[in-house]
Amino acid sequence: MKVERKLKELGLELPDAPKPVANYVTAVRSGNLVFLSGHGPVKEDGTLMTGKVGTDRTWEQGYEAAKRVTLGLLSSLKAEIGGLDKVRRVVKLLGMVNCTPDFEDQPKVINGASDLLVELFGEKGKHARSAVGMNSLPSNISVEIEMIVEVED
Amino acid sequence: MKVERKLKELGLELPDAPKPVANYVTAVRSGNLVFLSGHGPVKEDGTLMTGKVGTDRTWEQGYEAAKRVTLGLLSSLKAEIGGLDKVRRVVKLLGMVNCTPDFEDQPKVINGASDLLVELFGEKGKHARSAVGMNSLPSNISVEIEMIVEVED
Amino acid sequence: MKVERKLKELGLELPDAPKPVANYVTAVRSGNLVFLSGHGPVKEDGTLMTGKVGTDRTWEQGYEAAKRVTLGLLSSLKAEIGGLDKVRRVVKLLGMVNCTPDFEDQPKVINGASDLLVELFGEKGKHARSAVGMNSLPSNISVEIEMIVEVED
Repeated sequence: MKVERKLKELGLELPDAPKPVANYVTAVRSGNLVFLSGHGPVKEDGTLMTGKVGTDRTWEQGYEAAKRVTLGLLSSLKAEIGGLDKVRRVVKLLGMVNCTPDFEDQPKVINGASDLLVELFGEKGKHARSAVGMNSLPSNISVEIEMIVEVED
Repeated sequence: MKVERKLKELGLELPDAPKPVANYVTAVRSGNLVFLSGHGPVKEDGTLMTGKVGTDRTWEQGYEAAKRVTLGLLSSLKAEIGGLDKVRRVVKLLGMVNCTPDFEDQPKVINGASDLLVELFGEKGKHARSAVGMNSLPSNISVEIEMIVEVED
Repeated sequence: MKVERKLKELGLELPDAPKPVANYVTAVRSGNLVFLSGHGPVKEDGTLMTGKVGTDRTWEQGYEAAKRVTLGLLSSLKAEIGGLDKVRRVVKLLGMVNCTPDFEDQPKVINGASDLLVELFGEKGKHARSAVGMNSLPSNISVEIEMIVEVED
């Protein structure tokens, strides 16, 4: 329960694991890898953080959105594997920022995910990643992230 | 031949496996995972479904395109592993929709792939996925999807 | 040292392995797979190749950028696994081109990566890939590529 205690110390709470509304699931395990679906930023009140970064939203707001996305990813991961202490390594993030064509600070936005993962998991939280700009995302969410995690047998 | 019988029942036919025109291949197997290249929507007459969703195309047309992409992916997968009944689990899709910056229904479009996979493979067809918006795709195709599949030894 | 000799024959040199400036790393190994972060095109003088393909840059300039990205990826890979002759197979590329909404030649751009990989690794270099258009990338770089490689035990 180390990781979840750490979450509590940071004043953070995992949201309910999101339920996809179609013929897909939030996570699939194959061997020791768990592949997580792209998740969006859900606020504490259950609504989505929306708007394009670079015009409707600042990169700081994008950073917060990336942090919220990460909580949702961890909630789905926990539902899949039973507990977050079974994480052996966060392997890879694809961080997608809904932004204007002239926005260049996608890495600053996706740091909202990377910083939280390293704060929670330490060295195991250090991942490979891409941080890129999208012209649009579902329901106009500001950030979407998919993640690959290596877990214990 | 269960999956291919099911395809026939649905009145669907696998297109010829696409041949890439450069130094890459349509699928690479590593261990029990097959990584499939991004595929585009090829119509029965061999031409491509093109145009941006949200302006040139409706989401319903995008849905059809995603279904056609899936047939191409399955054709490449069959060429790689010999038969579709060797699929143990569809693991992950990255569904990319060529669309306008204000289009927000990428999930509805990519359901064209998800619905067909679950219809064909049942529980094994339930996958993790991301459905996102791209400002442009090769040859202006409407949808491109890449897929990871777990297969039998 | 076969691959590195080949690089020298081509008059190419690996750049210094890039150092990420945040809580992520350039490569994570999980089992026999190495997942590499999205890399950008670094010129020999250490500066970045920037600009949107289709307006600021031609596809030929994009091709060169994709080649430079590949050298950076190989440099990070070498730092992770010790030597490029340990590559068993280049598995998958996600090739992202910073481009205008009407640009349709992403495959020609990403061939800059694919051609070099096959020149260096032969059959082992033939990979699955997607080549897609992004509305923006970090620091306005012209191309970003992430890569999955299977390596020896």
